[in-house]
Amino acid sequence: MSTVTTLSTINGVNVEQLGANISAIQGEAGLAKFQFRATNTWINGGHNRTTIKEFYGVGKEDTTRTEPFVLDADEPPVLLGEDHGANPVEFVLHALASCLTTSMVYHAAARGIKIDSIESRLEGDLDLRGFLGISPDVRPGYKNLKVNFTVKSDATSETLQEMTKYSPVFDIVTNPVPVAISVNSQNDN
Amino acid sequence: MSTVTTLSTINGVNVEQLGANISAIQGEAGLAKFQFRATNTWINGGHNRTTIKEFYGVGKEDTTRTEPFVLDADEPPVLLGEDHGANPVEFVLHALASCLTTSMVYHAAARGIKIDSIESRLEGDLDLRGFLGISPDVRPGYKNLKVNFTVKSDATSETLQEMTKYSPVFDIVTNPVPVAISVNSQNDN
Repeated sequence: MSTVTTLSTINGVNVEQLGANISAIQGEAGLAKFQFRATNTWINGGHNRTTIKEFYGVGKEDTTRTEPFVLDADEPPVLLGEDHGANPVEFVLHALASCLTTSMVYHAAARGIKIDSIESRLEGDLDLRGFLGISPDVRPGYKNLKVNFTVKSDATSETLQEMTKYSPVFDIVTNPVPVAISVNSQNDN
Repeated sequence: MSTVTTLSTINGVNVEQLGANISAIQGEAGLAKFQFRATNTWINGGHNRTTIKEFYGVGKEDTTRTEPFVLDADEPPVLLGEDHGANPVEFVLHALASCLTTSMVYHAAARGIKIDSIESRLEGDLDLRGFLGISPDVRPGYKNLKVNFTVKSDATSETLQEMTKYSPVFDIVTNPVPVAISVNSQNDN
Protein backbone atom coordinates (compact mmCIF):
# COMPACT_ATOMS: atom_id res chain seq x y z
CA MET A 1 0.00 0.00 0.00
CA SER A 2 1.54 3.29 -1.04
CA THR A 3 -1.07 5.49 0.62
CA VAL A 4 -0.23 7.16 3.91
CA THR A 5 -2.68 6.17 6.60
CA THR A 6 -2.88 7.00 10.25
CA LEU A 7 -3.88 4.48 12.86
CA SER A 8 -7.23 6.23 13.17
CA THR A 9 -8.22 5.51 9.58
CA ILE A 10 -9.53 2.08 8.53
CA ASN A 11 -10.95 1.46 5.03
CA GLY A 12 -10.64 5.20 4.42
CA VAL A 13 -12.99 5.93 7.32
CA ASN A 14 -11.80 8.09 10.21
CA VAL A 15 -12.73 5.75 13.04
CA GLU A 16 -11.83 8.27 15.76
CA GLN A 17 -14.35 10.68 14.26
CA LEU A 18 -16.85 7.84 13.78
CA GLY A 19 -16.53 6.94 17.46
CA ALA A 20 -16.86 10.59 18.47
CA ASN A 21 -20.01 10.93 16.34
CA ILE A 22 -21.54 7.82 17.89
CA SER A 23 -20.77 9.11 21.41
CA ALA A 24 -22.25 12.52 20.59
CA ILE A 25 -25.43 10.97 19.20
CA GLN A 26 -25.74 8.64 22.18
CA GLY A 27 -25.63 11.75 24.36
CA GLU A 28 -28.07 13.76 22.24
CA ALA A 29 -30.34 11.80 19.91
CA GLY A 30 -31.40 14.96 18.02
CA LEU A 31 -27.98 15.08 16.38
CA ALA A 32 -28.92 11.91 14.46
CA LYS A 33 -31.81 13.61 12.67
CA PHE A 34 -31.03 14.17 8.98
CA GLN A 35 -33.16 15.56 6.19
CA PHE A 36 -32.02 15.00 2.61
CA ARG A 37 -33.53 16.99 -0.26
CA ALA A 38 -33.72 17.09 -4.02
CA THR A 39 -35.41 19.13 -6.72
CA ASN A 40 -36.28 17.78 -10.14
CA THR A 41 -37.23 19.47 -13.41
CA TRP A 42 -38.80 17.71 -16.37
CA ILE A 43 -36.98 18.36 -19.64
CA ASN A 44 -38.83 16.35 -22.32
CA GLY A 45 -40.23 12.85 -22.73
CA GLY A 46 -38.40 10.51 -20.36
CA HIS A 47 -35.64 13.06 -19.70
CA ASN A 48 -35.54 14.97 -16.43
CA ARG A 49 -32.88 16.44 -14.16
CA THR A 50 -32.36 16.36 -10.39
CA THR A 51 -30.34 18.87 -8.40
CA ILE A 52 -29.02 17.86 -4.96
CA LYS A 53 -27.11 20.16 -2.63
CA GLU A 54 -28.48 21.16 0.75
CA PHE A 55 -29.30 18.88 3.64
CA TYR A 56 -29.83 19.09 7.39
CA GLY A 57 -27.90 16.97 9.89
CA VAL A 58 -25.99 17.00 13.17
CA GLY A 59 -28.18 19.83 14.37
CA LYS A 60 -27.67 22.27 11.50
CA GLU A 61 -27.92 23.01 7.80
CA ASP A 62 -24.89 21.74 5.90
CA THR A 63 -22.81 24.49 4.30
CA THR A 64 -19.87 22.48 2.95
CA ARG A 65 -21.21 21.82 -0.53
CA THR A 66 -20.38 24.74 -2.80
CA GLU A 67 -21.80 23.17 -5.97
CA PRO A 68 -24.87 20.97 -6.43
CA PHE A 69 -24.81 17.45 -7.83
CA VAL A 70 -26.77 17.39 -11.08
CA LEU A 71 -28.20 14.06 -12.20
CA ASP A 72 -29.97 13.30 -15.47
CA ALA A 73 -32.43 10.45 -15.88
CA ASP A 74 -33.91 9.24 -19.14
CA GLU A 75 -35.13 6.05 -20.78
CA PRO A 76 -33.40 4.02 -23.50
CA PRO A 77 -34.92 4.06 -27.02
CA VAL A 78 -36.83 0.81 -26.46
CA LEU A 79 -38.64 2.63 -23.64
CA LEU A 80 -39.24 5.66 -25.87
CA GLY A 81 -36.48 7.84 -24.44
CA GLU A 82 -33.22 9.24 -25.80
CA ASP A 83 -30.84 7.68 -23.25
CA HIS A 84 -29.54 10.94 -21.76
CA GLY A 85 -28.97 9.07 -18.49
CA ALA A 86 -29.66 5.85 -16.64
CA ASN A 87 -33.35 5.29 -16.00
CA PRO A 88 -35.05 5.63 -12.61
CA VAL A 89 -35.03 1.93 -11.74
CA GLU A 90 -31.36 1.68 -12.74
CA PHE A 91 -30.66 4.51 -10.28
CA VAL A 92 -32.29 2.32 -7.61
CA LEU A 93 -29.66 -0.35 -8.37
CA HIS A 94 -26.91 2.26 -7.95
CA ALA A 95 -28.41 3.53 -4.69
CA LEU A 96 -28.67 0.00 -3.31
CA ALA A 97 -25.18 -1.08 -4.42
CA SER A 98 -23.51 2.05 -3.06
CA CYS A 99 -25.37 1.88 0.24
CA LEU A 100 -24.69 -1.80 0.89
CA THR A 101 -21.02 -1.21 0.07
CA THR A 102 -20.71 1.82 2.35
CA SER A 103 -22.48 -0.06 5.14
CA MET A 104 -19.90 -2.85 4.92
CA VAL A 105 -16.98 -0.38 4.77
CA TYR A 106 -18.12 1.74 7.74
CA HIS A 107 -19.25 -1.11 9.99
CA ALA A 108 -16.07 -3.04 9.27
CA ALA A 109 -14.04 0.09 10.13
CA ALA A 110 -15.93 0.48 13.40
CA ARG A 111 -15.01 -3.12 14.30
CA GLY A 112 -11.37 -2.70 13.23
CA ILE A 113 -11.75 -5.00 10.21
CA LYS A 114 -9.73 -4.01 7.15
CA ILE A 115 -11.31 -4.47 3.71
CA ASP A 116 -9.12 -4.61 0.60
CA SER A 117 -11.73 -4.58 -2.15
CA ILE A 118 -15.46 -4.83 -2.78
CA GLU A 119 -17.15 -5.54 -6.09
CA SER A 120 -20.85 -6.15 -6.58
CA ARG A 121 -23.19 -7.06 -9.40
CA LEU A 122 -26.93 -6.38 -9.23
CA GLU A 123 -29.87 -7.66 -11.25
CA GLY A 124 -33.47 -6.53 -10.96
CA ASP A 125 -36.43 -8.20 -12.68
CA LEU A 126 -39.30 -5.96 -13.68
CA ASP A 127 -42.49 -6.67 -15.66
CA LEU A 128 -43.45 -3.60 -17.68
CA ARG A 129 -47.16 -4.53 -17.60
CA GLY A 130 -47.33 -2.98 -14.11
CA PHE A 131 -46.08 0.43 -15.26
CA LEU A 132 -48.28 0.33 -18.35
CA GLY A 133 -51.33 -0.38 -16.21
CA ILE A 134 -52.43 -3.29 -18.40
CA SER A 135 -52.26 -5.99 -15.68
CA PRO A 136 -53.54 -4.89 -12.27
CA ASP A 137 -52.01 -7.99 -10.63
CA VAL A 138 -48.47 -7.09 -11.82
CA ARG A 139 -46.57 -4.68 -9.58
CA PRO A 140 -44.90 -1.68 -11.31
CA GLY A 141 -41.61 -2.07 -9.43
CA TYR A 142 -38.98 -4.77 -9.18
CA LYS A 143 -40.34 -8.26 -8.58
CA ASN A 144 -37.02 -9.18 -7.00
CA LEU A 145 -33.42 -8.04 -6.77
CA LYS A 146 -30.21 -10.05 -6.60
CA VAL A 147 -26.92 -8.65 -5.28
CA ASN A 148 -23.70 -10.65 -5.53
CA PHE A 149 -20.68 -9.33 -3.63
CA THR A 150 -17.05 -10.36 -4.03
CA VAL A 151 -14.99 -8.98 -1.16
CA LYS A 152 -11.33 -9.26 -0.20
CA SER A 153 -11.15 -8.95 3.54
CA ASP A 154 -10.29 -10.73 6.77
CA ALA A 155 -14.00 -10.72 7.64
CA THR A 156 -16.06 -13.80 6.97
CA SER A 157 -18.86 -13.73 4.42
CA GLU A 158 -21.31 -14.09 7.32
CA THR A 159 -19.95 -11.02 9.13
CA LEU A 160 -20.07 -8.90 5.96
CA GLN A 161 -23.57 -10.09 5.15
CA GLU A 162 -24.71 -9.20 8.67
CA MET A 163 -23.40 -5.64 8.20
CA THR A 164 -25.67 -5.08 5.19
CA LYS A 165 -28.73 -5.04 7.46
CA TYR A 166 -27.69 -1.52 8.58
CA SER A 167 -27.93 -0.15 5.04
CA PRO A 168 -30.56 2.61 4.77
CA VAL A 169 -31.31 1.86 1.10
CA PHE A 170 -31.61 -1.88 1.81
CA ASP A 171 -34.22 -0.96 4.43
CA ILE A 172 -35.98 1.44 2.02
CA VAL A 173 -36.18 -1.22 -0.71
CA THR A 174 -37.11 -4.21 1.44
CA ASN A 175 -39.59 -2.42 3.75
CA PRO A 176 -42.37 0.11 3.15
CA VAL A 177 -41.58 3.84 3.41
CA PRO A 178 -44.56 6.24 3.65
CA VAL A 179 -44.47 8.69 0.72
CA ALA A 180 -46.76 11.74 0.78
CA ILE A 181 -47.25 13.19 -2.70
CA SER A 182 -48.96 16.52 -3.35
CA VAL A 183 -49.64 17.79 -6.87
CA ASN A 184 -50.45 21.40 -7.65
CA SER A 185 -51.59 21.58 -11.28
CA GLN A 186 -51.83 25.03 -12.81
CA ASN A 187 -53.60 25.62 -16.10
CA ASP A 188 -52.49 28.97 -17.42
CA ASN A 189 -53.82 28.55 -20.95
CA MET B 1 -43.44 26.51 -29.21
CA SER B 2 -40.54 26.48 -31.66
CA THR B 3 -40.02 22.73 -31.66
CA VAL B 4 -41.33 20.69 -34.55
CA THR B 5 -43.70 18.00 -33.35
CA THR B 6 -45.74 15.44 -35.19
CA LEU B 7 -49.25 14.57 -34.18
CA SER B 8 -47.96 11.27 -32.84
CA THR B 9 -45.73 12.91 -30.20
CA ILE B 10 -47.19 14.22 -26.94
CA ASN B 11 -44.96 15.46 -24.10
CA GLY B 12 -41.97 14.24 -26.11
CA VAL B 13 -43.34 10.68 -26.05
CA ASN B 14 -44.07 8.87 -29.31
CA VAL B 15 -47.62 7.80 -28.55
CA GLU B 16 -47.94 5.72 -31.73
CA GLN B 17 -44.95 3.67 -30.61
CA LEU B 18 -46.31 3.58 -27.04
CA GLY B 19 -49.62 2.22 -28.33
CA ALA B 20 -47.80 -0.32 -30.54
CA ASN B 21 -45.72 -1.47 -27.55
CA ILE B 22 -48.82 -1.90 -25.39
CA SER B 23 -50.53 -3.91 -28.14
CA ALA B 24 -47.46 -6.11 -28.62
CA ILE B 25 -47.21 -6.79 -24.87
CA GLN B 26 -50.91 -7.52 -24.63
CA GLY B 27 -50.36 -10.13 -27.34
CA GLU B 28 -47.21 -11.60 -25.80
CA ALA B 29 -46.65 -10.94 -22.09
CA GLY B 30 -43.03 -12.14 -22.26
CA LEU B 31 -42.09 -8.94 -24.11
CA ALA B 32 -42.80 -7.03 -20.87
CA LYS B 33 -40.04 -8.83 -18.96
CA PHE B 34 -37.09 -6.54 -18.29
CA GLN B 35 -33.90 -7.14 -16.33
CA PHE B 36 -31.82 -4.12 -15.33
CA ARG B 37 -28.23 -4.53 -14.12
CA ALA B 38 -25.43 -2.64 -12.45
CA THR B 39 -21.92 -3.29 -11.21
CA ASN B 40 -20.29 -1.36 -8.38
CA THR B 41 -16.68 -1.02 -7.27
CA TRP B 42 -15.61 0.37 -3.90
CA ILE B 43 -12.96 3.10 -4.18
CA ASN B 44 -12.23 4.27 -0.60
CA GLY B 45 -14.20 5.20 2.49
CA GLY B 46 -17.70 6.29 1.46
CA HIS B 47 -16.70 6.59 -2.21
CA ASN B 48 -17.75 3.95 -4.72
CA ARG B 49 -18.66 3.83 -8.40
CA THR B 50 -21.47 2.15 -10.33
CA THR B 51 -21.40 1.25 -14.02
CA ILE B 52 -24.69 0.74 -15.86
CA LYS B 53 -24.97 -0.33 -19.48
CA GLU B 54 -26.60 -3.60 -20.48
CA PHE B 55 -30.18 -4.65 -19.88
CA TYR B 56 -32.68 -7.16 -21.18
CA GLY B 57 -36.12 -6.22 -22.46
CA VAL B 58 -38.65 -6.72 -25.24
CA GLY B 59 -37.35 -10.23 -25.73
CA LYS B 60 -33.66 -9.45 -26.22
CA GLU B 61 -30.46 -7.96 -24.87
CA ASP B 62 -30.27 -4.23 -25.56
CA THR B 63 -27.43 -3.23 -27.89
CA THR B 64 -28.14 0.48 -28.34
CA ARG B 65 -25.93 1.79 -25.52
CA THR B 66 -22.38 2.22 -26.77
CA GLU B 67 -21.03 3.73 -23.53
CA PRO B 68 -21.92 2.93 -19.92
CA PHE B 69 -23.33 5.41 -17.46
CA VAL B 70 -20.82 5.87 -14.62
CA LEU B 71 -22.16 7.09 -11.29
CA ASP B 72 -20.14 8.04 -8.22
CA ALA B 73 -21.56 7.93 -4.71
CA ASP B 74 -19.89 9.29 -1.61
CA GLU B 75 -20.78 10.88 1.72
CA PRO B 76 -20.38 14.53 2.76
CA PRO B 77 -17.67 15.39 5.32
CA VAL B 78 -20.12 15.33 8.23
CA LEU B 79 -20.72 11.67 7.34
CA LEU B 80 -16.96 11.04 7.06
CA GLY B 81 -16.77 11.10 3.26
CA GLU B 82 -15.18 13.42 0.71
CA ASP B 83 -18.30 14.40 -1.21
CA HIS B 84 -17.28 12.91 -4.57
CA GLY B 85 -20.97 12.40 -5.32
CA ALA B 86 -24.45 12.45 -3.86
CA ASN B 87 -24.93 9.83 -1.17
CA PRO B 88 -26.95 6.63 -1.57
CA VAL B 89 -30.14 7.93 0.09
CA GLU B 90 -29.94 11.12 -2.00
CA PHE B 91 -29.86 8.90 -5.09
CA VAL B 92 -33.12 7.36 -3.86
CA LEU B 93 -34.67 10.85 -3.97
CA HIS B 94 -33.44 11.26 -7.55
CA ALA B 95 -34.79 7.83 -8.56
CA LEU B 96 -38.17 8.59 -7.00
CA ALA B 97 -38.45 12.11 -8.45
CA SER B 98 -37.46 11.01 -11.93
CA CYS B 99 -39.77 7.99 -11.92
CA LEU B 100 -42.83 9.87 -10.66
CA THR B 101 -42.21 12.55 -13.28
CA THR B 102 -41.79 10.07 -16.13
CA SER B 103 -44.93 8.22 -15.00
CA MET B 104 -46.94 11.45 -15.25
CA VAL B 105 -45.43 12.34 -18.63
CA TYR B 106 -45.99 8.92 -20.24
CA HIS B 107 -49.46 8.27 -18.81
CA ALA B 108 -50.59 11.79 -19.74
CA ALA B 109 -49.27 11.20 -23.28
CA ALA B 110 -51.17 7.91 -23.52
CA ARG B 111 -54.35 9.77 -22.59
CA GLY B 112 -53.69 12.65 -24.98
CA ILE B 113 -53.04 15.16 -22.18
CA LYS B 114 -50.35 17.76 -22.87
CA ILE B 115 -48.04 18.78 -20.03
CA ASP B 116 -46.10 22.05 -20.22
CA SER B 117 -43.83 21.76 -17.18
CA ILE B 118 -43.19 19.66 -14.09
CA GLU B 119 -41.12 20.67 -11.08
CA SER B 120 -40.81 18.68 -7.87
CA ARG B 121 -39.19 19.06 -4.50
CA LEU B 122 -38.46 16.08 -2.26
CA GLU B 123 -37.59 15.78 1.42
CA GLY B 124 -36.67 12.62 3.29
CA ASP B 125 -36.26 12.33 7.06
CA LEU B 126 -33.72 9.83 8.33
CA ASP B 127 -32.47 9.08 11.84
CA LEU B 128 -28.81 8.06 11.71
CA ARG B 129 -29.14 5.91 14.84
CA GLY B 130 -30.57 3.15 12.63
CA PHE B 131 -27.53 2.99 10.35
CA LEU B 132 -25.15 3.23 13.30
CA GLY B 133 -26.87 0.32 15.00
CA ILE B 134 -27.19 2.14 18.32
CA SER B 135 -31.01 2.06 18.51
CA PRO B 136 -32.59 -1.21 17.38
CA ASP B 137 -36.04 0.41 17.29
CA VAL B 138 -34.92 3.06 14.75
CA ARG B 139 -35.07 1.99 11.13
CA PRO B 140 -31.94 2.65 9.01
CA GLY B 141 -33.88 4.07 6.05
CA TYR B 142 -36.19 7.02 5.54
CA LYS B 143 -38.87 7.43 8.17
CA ASN B 144 -40.99 9.27 5.63
CA LEU B 145 -40.73 11.06 2.30
CA LYS B 146 -42.55 14.14 1.00
CA VAL B 147 -42.88 14.99 -2.68
CA ASN B 148 -44.38 18.30 -3.81
CA PHE B 149 -45.15 18.70 -7.51
CA THR B 150 -45.94 21.89 -9.39
CA VAL B 151 -47.26 21.08 -12.84
CA LYS B 152 -48.50 23.20 -15.73
CA SER B 153 -51.01 21.10 -17.63
CA ASP B 154 -54.64 20.78 -18.62
CA ALA B 155 -54.89 17.76 -16.33
CA THR B 156 -56.31 18.19 -12.86
CA SER B 157 -54.15 17.62 -9.80
CA GLU B 158 -56.24 14.51 -9.07
CA THR B 159 -55.58 12.99 -12.51
CA LEU B 160 -51.83 13.64 -12.24
CA GLN B 161 -51.70 12.25 -8.72
CA GLU B 162 -53.53 9.10 -9.88
CA MET B 163 -50.87 8.57 -12.58
CA THR B 164 -48.10 8.41 -9.97
CA LYS B 165 -49.38 5.04 -8.75
CA TYR B 166 -47.90 3.44 -11.91
CA SER B 167 -44.37 4.58 -10.99
CA PRO B 168 -42.03 1.60 -10.50
CA VAL B 169 -39.81 3.46 -7.99
CA PHE B 170 -42.87 4.65 -6.03
CA ASP B 171 -43.87 0.98 -5.76
CA ILE B 172 -40.31 -0.05 -4.78
CA VAL B 173 -40.13 2.59 -2.02
CA THR B 174 -43.65 2.20 -0.62
CA ASN B 175 -43.84 -1.63 -0.81
CA PRO B 176 -41.38 -4.40 0.07
CA VAL B 177 -39.11 -5.80 -2.66
CA PRO B 178 -37.33 -9.12 -1.93
CA VAL B 179 -33.55 -8.61 -2.10
CA ALA B 180 -31.26 -11.68 -2.15
CA ILE B 181 -27.71 -10.80 -1.12
CA SER B 182 -24.79 -13.19 -1.45
CA VAL B 183 -21.33 -12.34 -0.16
CA ASN B 184 -18.19 -14.18 -1.23
CA SER B 185 -15.34 -13.06 1.04
CA GLN B 186 -11.85 -14.03 -0.06
CA ASN B 187 -8.89 -13.70 2.27
CA ASP B 188 -5.76 -13.76 0.19
CA ASN B 189 -3.36 -12.52 2.84
